[in-house]
Amino acid sequence: MKRISEYAVEVEAAMQALNIGAGKPNSLYAPIEYALEAGGKRIRPVLLLMTVDAFGGDEAAAMAPALGMELFHNFTLLHDDVMDDSAMRRNRESVYKKYGASAAILSGDTMLGLAERQMTRVADGALRRVIEAFNRMSIEVYEGQALDMEFETRDDISVDEYVEMIRLKTGCLLGACAEIGGILSGCDDKVCARLREYGENLGIAFQIEDDWLDTFGDAATFGKPIGGDINQGKKTFLYVSGMAAGSEESKALKVAMSLPAGDMKVKTVSRIYEKMQLDASARKAAAHYSAKALKAVKATGLPEDRLESYKYLLDRLSGRKK
Amino acid sequence: MKRISEYAVEVEAAMQALNIGAGKPNSLYAPIEYALEAGGKRIRPVLLLMTVDAFGGDEAAAMAPALGMELFHNFTLLHDDVMDDSAMRRNRESVYKKYGASAAILSGDTMLGLAERQMTRVADGALRRVIEAFNRMSIEVYEGQALDMEFETRDDISVDEYVEMIRLKTGCLLGACAEIGGILSGCDDKVCARLREYGENLGIAFQIEDDWLDTFGDAATFGKPIGGDINQGKKTFLYVSGMAAGSEESKALKVAMSLPAGDMKVKTVSRIYEKMQLDASARKAAAHYSAKALKAVKATGLPEDRLESYKYLLDRLSGRKK
Repeated sequence: MKRISEYAVEVEAAMQALNIGAGKPNSLYAPIEYALEAGGKRIRPVLLLMTVDAFGGDEAAAMAPALGMELFHNFTLLHDDVMDDSAMRRNRESVYKKYGASAAILSGDTMLGLAERQMTRVADGALRRVIEAFNRMSIEVYEGQALDMEFETRDDISVDEYVEMIRLKTGCLLGACAEIGGILSGCDDKVCARLREYGENLGIAFQIEDDWLDTFGDAATFGKPIGGDINQGKKTFLYVSGMAAGSEESKALKVAMSLPAGDMKVKTVSRIYEKMQLDASARKAAAHYSAKALKAVKATGLPEDRLESYKYLLDRLSGRKK
Repeated sequence: MKRISEYAVEVEAAMQALNIGAGKPNSLYAPIEYALEAGGKRIRPVLLLMTVDAFGGDEAAAMAPALGMELFHNFTLLHDDVMDDSAMRRNRESVYKKYGASAAILSGDTMLGLAERQMTRVADGALRRVIEAFNRMSIEVYEGQALDMEFETRDDISVDEYVEMIRLKTGCLLGACAEIGGILSGCDDKVCARLREYGENLGIAFQIEDDWLDTFGDAATFGKPIGGDINQGKKTFLYVSGMAAGSEESKALKVAMSLPAGDMKVKTVSRIYEKMQLDASARKAAAHYSAKALKAVKATGLPEDRLESYKYLLDRLSGRKK
């Protein structure tokens, strides 16, 4: 099997070969090209392709749906940035900031259409299963985003509700990548369900780790300034767990979160998290979902030597530490 | 064959039976329910269903994709209202105005997902053709909307460019309804292409007629105040034709269009249109595309007695007069 980085290079080349920026009218396709040239880790198509390899499918034939999943992911970012009023994405202006809300909406819709076009480029025997898995996933992702927005105005979110939200918003897309990789390799529904479980739990572990890194990580390795979530008052795993404890510290946490954004707020909130030992419990939770993911992929019956890439992804995405 | 109104009643009942408003989270599905309960003419699913009837397909089995096309149409309205900053839709607040931009974007995305779910509910033998026709159409509609927005800042639009824009934005969805009706009835590609041509030209004729009605129609029958396009400075068939003439009147038209919105502006612009005989040429153009539509559907070889619904739709949508 190839290394993760080799798949990523193949994905990059295939994406460029689509030549999406040449589409007309330019006002519609230029923002798409801009969004795609920013790169990203291409984890989703890599997960699909490595699954096809691991289960003996035809990797070359799987490139189109792999690109479809990456296009879908990028479409969600275009719309999310409008909804979240985010000016920055991948260290440069977001499409929303650079081209405006209308362009981000319409070019986003078009990216979704292009994604779906790639998803249809599969063998007739796999088409229905692939399209249905993609469609289910897309609606789950929107439900996750809706819950995330609902949570902005709520302070009584349970940890279970939070995990369900990130499963929908982040886990289901990774789950569908692994699942569709299985479908394209001719795996039965049972194996595909285990693969989806791997991806979903990978996504949950990744998001909890990301929440932890945003407060306790190292700015240089994390790639973003530390404390962003605290300053924006985001409902993260740390905050939700802290409030769900219902203790005196929970009250202090709520007060600290109402401080004006700045170093003082970040330090105060971080100290409460530490006092409540939430840094440790977040790491523990990430490890828990990571272990669930590994168990699920092992349950497919895949030989030990083919599990390496799955372990590597878990380690890279959810065991990032600092 | 049934009457148009009978199909519309069936569509209404089937749409309600989907019970979309019961979806969770409510913040995501309530705006969808609100958008759908406003009704509308349901012309798109009617065109699909009557085509299935005319070509001997299974009408009951075609209801799911018919609903899919109506859901797609409504999804585009949600996003268009954000892009156009439109507070009103079907005589009440738009989803954008009532629930905000984020809800209109995300509930719109979800409506698209629900539309696509309905499109997959077809026989295996038709699935690929249906999905591919739907996908092509969706991208054409976005391209049309992008052109429409580009035109806002241009004064050198040719009549051909304008017709191509409305073909994409309005014609292609109607075209795909007729085309998919043909696919579901087992028609070959040639017949399906003629059916698409019918729908596309019906859409072009409809839009030109709509442009005419907005200036020369009767407010009560039209259902909207007269002169809205003029007051908003919209690039309609009338305005584009007037500017494309390149005459002294074109210059006067440009000046008149820069007047502040109000009765004075509407009267001045309307008089220039009349002087340029654009009211007559718009009616002529609508009749031209209407005739093209009829010719296309006749070329499918459909017996004369089965053409009635197609003629009726043309008459209702593009021969509305006042």
